[in-house]
Amino acid sequence: MTKAVLTLFLASLGPMAKAQAEYVNPFIGTEGMGHCFPGACAPFGIVQLSPETDTIPHNVDGHYQGRVYDYCSGYQHTDNTIVGFSHTHLSGTGHSDLGDILIMPQTGNLQLNPGTKENPSGGYRQRIDHASEQASPGFYAVTLADNGVRAEMTATQRTGIHRYTFPNDSDQRIIIDLLHGIYNYDGKVLWSTIRVVNDTLLTGYRITDGWARSNYTYFAISFSKPIQSYGYRDMKREKYMGFWRKFDIYHNFPDIAGRNIVAYFDFQKGNGESNKEQKGDTLVVKVALSGVSMQGALKNLQAEAAGKTFDQIREETRKSWEHELGCIVCEGTVDQKTMLYTSLYHTMINPSIYMDIDRRYRGLDGEIHQAEGFDNYTVFSIWDTYRALHPLLGLLKTSRNNNMVRSMLHHQQQNIVGTLPVWSLMGNEGWCMTGYHAVSVLADAMVKNESLRPEYENFLKAMLATANSKWFPSLNEYKQLGYCPYDRDGTAASNTLEYAFDDWSIYNAALTIGADSIADQFRTRALNYRNTYDPSCGFASPRYKNGNFKSDLDPYQTYGEGFIEGNSWNFSFHVPHDPVGLIQCVGGEREFLKKLDQLFVMDLPEKYYKDNEDITADCLVGGYVHGNEPSHHVPYLYAWTSQPWKTQQWLRTIMNKMYRNEIRGLGGNDDCGQMSAWYIFTAMGFYPVAPGCDQYVIGAPYLPYMKITLENGHAIEIKAPRVSDKNRYVQRVLLNGKPYDKLYITHSLLSQGCIIEFEMSPKPNMKRGLRPFDKPYSMTQP
Amino acid sequence: MTKAVLTLFLASLGPMAKAQAEYVNPFIGTEGMGHCFPGACAPFGIVQLSPETDTIPHNVDGHYQGRVYDYCSGYQHTDNTIVGFSHTHLSGTGHSDLGDILIMPQTGNLQLNPGTKENPSGGYRQRIDHASEQASPGFYAVTLADNGVRAEMTATQRTGIHRYTFPNDSDQRIIIDLLHGIYNYDGKVLWSTIRVVNDTLLTGYRITDGWARSNYTYFAISFSKPIQSYGYRDMKREKYMGFWRKFDIYHNFPDIAGRNIVAYFDFQKGNGESNKEQKGDTLVVKVALSGVSMQGALKNLQAEAAGKTFDQIREETRKSWEHELGCIVCEGTVDQKTMLYTSLYHTMINPSIYMDIDRRYRGLDGEIHQAEGFDNYTVFSIWDTYRALHPLLGLLKTSRNNNMVRSMLHHQQQNIVGTLPVWSLMGNEGWCMTGYHAVSVLADAMVKNESLRPEYENFLKAMLATANSKWFPSLNEYKQLGYCPYDRDGTAASNTLEYAFDDWSIYNAALTIGADSIADQFRTRALNYRNTYDPSCGFASPRYKNGNFKSDLDPYQTYGEGFIEGNSWNFSFHVPHDPVGLIQCVGGEREFLKKLDQLFVMDLPEKYYKDNEDITADCLVGGYVHGNEPSHHVPYLYAWTSQPWKTQQWLRTIMNKMYRNEIRGLGGNDDCGQMSAWYIFTAMGFYPVAPGCDQYVIGAPYLPYMKITLENGHAIEIKAPRVSDKNRYVQRVLLNGKPYDKLYITHSLLSQGCIIEFEMSPKPNMKRGLRPFDKPYSMTQP
Repeated sequence: MTKAVLTLFLASLGPMAKAQAEYVNPFIGTEGMGHCFPGACAPFGIVQLSPETDTIPHNVDGHYQGRVYDYCSGYQHTDNTIVGFSHTHLSGTGHSDLGDILIMPQTGNLQLNPGTKENPSGGYRQRIDHASEQASPGFYAVTLADNGVRAEMTATQRTGIHRYTFPNDSDQRIIIDLLHGIYNYDGKVLWSTIRVVNDTLLTGYRITDGWARSNYTYFAISFSKPIQSYGYRDMKREKYMGFWRKFDIYHNFPDIAGRNIVAYFDFQKGNGESNKEQKGDTLVVKVALSGVSMQGALKNLQAEAAGKTFDQIREETRKSWEHELGCIVCEGTVDQKTMLYTSLYHTMINPSIYMDIDRRYRGLDGEIHQAEGFDNYTVFSIWDTYRALHPLLGLLKTSRNNNMVRSMLHHQQQNIVGTLPVWSLMGNEGWCMTGYHAVSVLADAMVKNESLRPEYENFLKAMLATANSKWFPSLNEYKQLGYCPYDRDGTAASNTLEYAFDDWSIYNAALTIGADSIADQFRTRALNYRNTYDPSCGFASPRYKNGNFKSDLDPYQTYGEGFIEGNSWNFSFHVPHDPVGLIQCVGGEREFLKKLDQLFVMDLPEKYYKDNEDITADCLVGGYVHGNEPSHHVPYLYAWTSQPWKTQQWLRTIMNKMYRNEIRGLGGNDDCGQMSAWYIFTAMGFYPVAPGCDQYVIGAPYLPYMKITLENGHAIEIKAPRVSDKNRYVQRVLLNGKPYDKLYITHSLLSQGCIIEFEMSPKPNMKRGLRPFDKPYSMTQP
Repeated sequence: MTKAVLTLFLASLGPMAKAQAEYVNPFIGTEGMGHCFPGACAPFGIVQLSPETDTIPHNVDGHYQGRVYDYCSGYQHTDNTIVGFSHTHLSGTGHSDLGDILIMPQTGNLQLNPGTKENPSGGYRQRIDHASEQASPGFYAVTLADNGVRAEMTATQRTGIHRYTFPNDSDQRIIIDLLHGIYNYDGKVLWSTIRVVNDTLLTGYRITDGWARSNYTYFAISFSKPIQSYGYRDMKREKYMGFWRKFDIYHNFPDIAGRNIVAYFDFQKGNGESNKEQKGDTLVVKVALSGVSMQGALKNLQAEAAGKTFDQIREETRKSWEHELGCIVCEGTVDQKTMLYTSLYHTMINPSIYMDIDRRYRGLDGEIHQAEGFDNYTVFSIWDTYRALHPLLGLLKTSRNNNMVRSMLHHQQQNIVGTLPVWSLMGNEGWCMTGYHAVSVLADAMVKNESLRPEYENFLKAMLATANSKWFPSLNEYKQLGYCPYDRDGTAASNTLEYAFDDWSIYNAALTIGADSIADQFRTRALNYRNTYDPSCGFASPRYKNGNFKSDLDPYQTYGEGFIEGNSWNFSFHVPHDPVGLIQCVGGEREFLKKLDQLFVMDLPEKYYKDNEDITADCLVGGYVHGNEPSHHVPYLYAWTSQPWKTQQWLRTIMNKMYRNEIRGLGGNDDCGQMSAWYIFTAMGFYPVAPGCDQYVIGAPYLPYMKITLENGHAIEIKAPRVSDKNRYVQRVLLNGKPYDKLYITHSLLSQGCIIEFEMSPKPNMKRGLRPFDKPYSMTQP
């Protein structure tokens, strides 16, 4: 949606106060690096019904195709065609997959291939004018320019609802492409089937070997009027069929199966559901998904969507979003509120509910389980989300986050290698990215939720099994040497830093539970980060088994220098649990401050981010990379120095540059809401630098007023009436009306509800937060 | 086993009376056309653990490979190598599939490809000397000549048990080839996985798109000693793997998955289970299967095989076989008893139990069901087995046959097209062959089992849905025209004959239930066979829509003349339900007898059976084809003529020629026991010419004495003390001591138990059975 369209849309809502959901602009982050999708979904719903604008095979002849990275969510706003509307997506990720069960309305000649961006008329693909697009939480619409069909989408948690308004007197056909997918390749679809149960109901499934190695997507699809005729083509028949099936299996035969199925269903003109807003004749298609069975999908359809009109479901889902987004009330400009609520919206798409309405779900062990005593979630992009997303959900949506933590525990228990999830996707372990940061998510939930105490033992057991697994690269050596040796491990330096942080989580969790000997053991491991700092330069550096550091380290270089998706310049600040110790490793406060200052102002030569998937000019502040996660806590590190005010200075710069109310408004992958969660915390004025302890480090608020209502009914009010780009500095803080000089605030304080008042000014208060007892947590002390 | 070996084996059993199971020779029918397998299975068990002697792709570049037909059961005795031992097979079929989960013991260098028949040393394949083979019900053994491993197999219904005795001091390795299969082709395996649960337990599954379109085979595999190390190769990696899995997934990583997996497991020398009979060190592998889930397979393993030694299981299964085979006691020569019990054995392999120990099974609808009130069976080769196998099981194993009928009913209820099975295989409909003969199986069970009365309505409903389905070729036209028109249907003539018979089954079932209008409707349809006889020649002939018959019919030609797997000469006798009407169609009794006589004595030119899969010289008596099913009732048709004694003449000729105690001893495909069931009925002296009525037509007994004990405890004694090749003619019959002049006996008489005495002589009694009221059932009367 263009800003003009948005304004028009908002204006149409009349004089009443706008609900939070109305500020959400799902188009933000749908161009460039954001990797968000504009489609319709319910909060935390597994069905995310969204248009796909291109079909890029992820490999050709075994070679990786870089462009697939642009289509992690299936959508790039720069494209001017739509392939179709599929039901599963990843929100903001840096890896692509899903795009299951693609549907497209068609008129005129039957076309079963998707066509190309360059020649959309060669297939069922449609040109679009972006001006015709509309999106709001739970709703997406677009006019297909070639055939004139208005396509509207809404969704429940497990069902996508399509309403297609066909031009009067045009043919009405629905294409269901079971071969289509994101991260597709020749062979991704292992099997697919459609059963035409009756003239308004289909069931079926497909199994894919995508990024999720074996993803079972069962479906039940209902149509609002009867199918007249149907058929399919197997786009690449691989099997000798024999002579034994003596009828035409390709036309009106209700038992469709194969690996390359594109099917079509023809409907009669006229007699569709009425549609107040659109002229023409409508066909409503409801698509329920299940990871368990077709029966499961059918139950989901019946429970969530049967017997309801498109408008009813749209309205119910809008209300769900309003309810979920309603936990934050704020003041600010339209742009600011748009960014805040869009960010909040982004934090409630993934992780997603992954169980049927009857609570059955497909586990990591390939078995069907009943979720007893918890709700099962999937899509855990934990290397990203342990940092701020899970802490944010833990604060705002505590029961959901507790259920996510329990889902991770069940993942571990079902996992043949016995580890907590690294990247959990539809009952699969993706092993993507480094560390075993699920332990941080668990520790954070433990530390902040006394109510989980009966489960602490199980959590700790799972954490220990994970942190002693033989499946993490060079973890054995790390345990022996105190660091990951570069001889064995190409990302040895960042692994050492990440393992040490994770080990600190376990240390903290063990302390919480009174498991002292475990705490001792992991205290030692948590300090291992020290072993990867090269004292000769004060940078974290890859180190060999023999103790030597890499001699020719290029600390500006992201790849090939012993770090993952970050250069030494950024990763060297990655000791969230022990900033005091870190300062010593870097060479003392003076050197530390020099480096930290330099990070934000340096002029990073283009060669260091050219052709780099994760780092672009859009996501840089100096050499600080906000577009990828390892640096997210870095601006807050000034709190441990004598210049805490510099945090305030940089936060607003980052907020303004990286989060803009524009389609290309996100500076990097949203990463299942991590980028957005950073925004929300930072807007509130505090951030969980080291999730797993109960402190949030105070930065500076971004908005004049915020009120956060917690599940327990308590509210956090944050007032900063004078805040502005100019008045970005915190002069003074009042907590519940009393002066508060600490640089941190605890979770227990927040969870009881409180009023935090920030007095903002154009000049920093350089004296604030300098006393030792005002400093935030650090594992070691000076 | 050679005869010499058999004799030796039998001699070793000592002086006691031999149990029935000891006469069974599983090698009969394993060479040439029999398509039997020699491996180990329990009665009606789904696990049929048998060696495979070759791996023929069923297609190459999309072209059908004829040779795959030789390997329907995976085994040809002429081969001198074994690829390995797999767990699922088809017994005697004319179409191939299965061969799931192949296991092979290996010593020395790791070899993961199967090698070829020509160059077995190029892979894990092994040469064998057939003299080293042993087989008996529930047991198979062979010595692998290259590595010296003695391989012994036994099985429970759901578990295959392997005992490998490795030469002392040799390496011990197990290959598990998940890529291997019968009816294999590049792409048959859709997905496969192995989870190494612990050092003695694997679980996993594979999904194949074979002849069974989507076959789910889950497994649980236990080893009698711990795995030392393991690994796998993906024989054809299709997917770009990305960089995100940072460890070696190919060695000792317990989460194995892919489409082309061949895995290996190494074990320590020594400390195996002791094996009294073999020198060396043993490794026992227990492989449980499930169509439902890995958990299901694990439960099956635990229930049937865990905690038992190989010898215990072998003994239990031997006893099961003795129990099942014990329903018949007989006298005769060793060859005769061998043939009788081997035939009886062949009737109890397929259909097979297809549900887990907890009664869960995969239905035709792709959903998991609980079998309530019945046992679920699969492998229904109904075009073959409706004729004699199901009637035989209905007589001998009544509850099992009732459960098979119920399984067919559930198939129909789960079937998206709502029809009873045509060829049901592992939760799939294969649609193989013609007619809807399941209605005959249902009708036969209804007519003979008053106890099924509460289910009659459901049966009839399923029969009607089937007989009015639009998915049978030219059935709509048949209903309109009274015959299948050749313009629309390449096998129009045989379809007309088969549909008419099936319709008579429904007519009969409807009468049984008192559904008179349905009976009327199907009475008319049952007489449709008349419309396909060309009065100008007295042969069944394909007929066009316009009423004309094919003018240039070659009644000797099997293919391309309007019949399926049979020529007009044979198929023209295919009116089992109305021989009287048939005689009129052929041109009256004189012409009928002339043709029937000629059928058995004609000299069929070789060109008519050369290069013919189903008809070979081995299976011919004149032009009568016993090796395929359509003619199986034909020798009994003399009963409706003035020369009933000719039945007696030809039966013994057929018995002697087609069923020989030799490896190549079967004249045609055993077809899941149909050929064998014919043998048993004929040996008893009667045959169910028209299953669906309660009469058996009396032929001539083959053995001097048989006693058949029914489930209800009653026994049928058949005495023919003077019978011999010479004394093949029935002079007189006594039923329970009283003269019995009828040419048929009813099921109700048999089921109450009776003694039938046959007085045999070298000359026929040409007067017997000529009175009208002694004639067997015919739908119409003269």
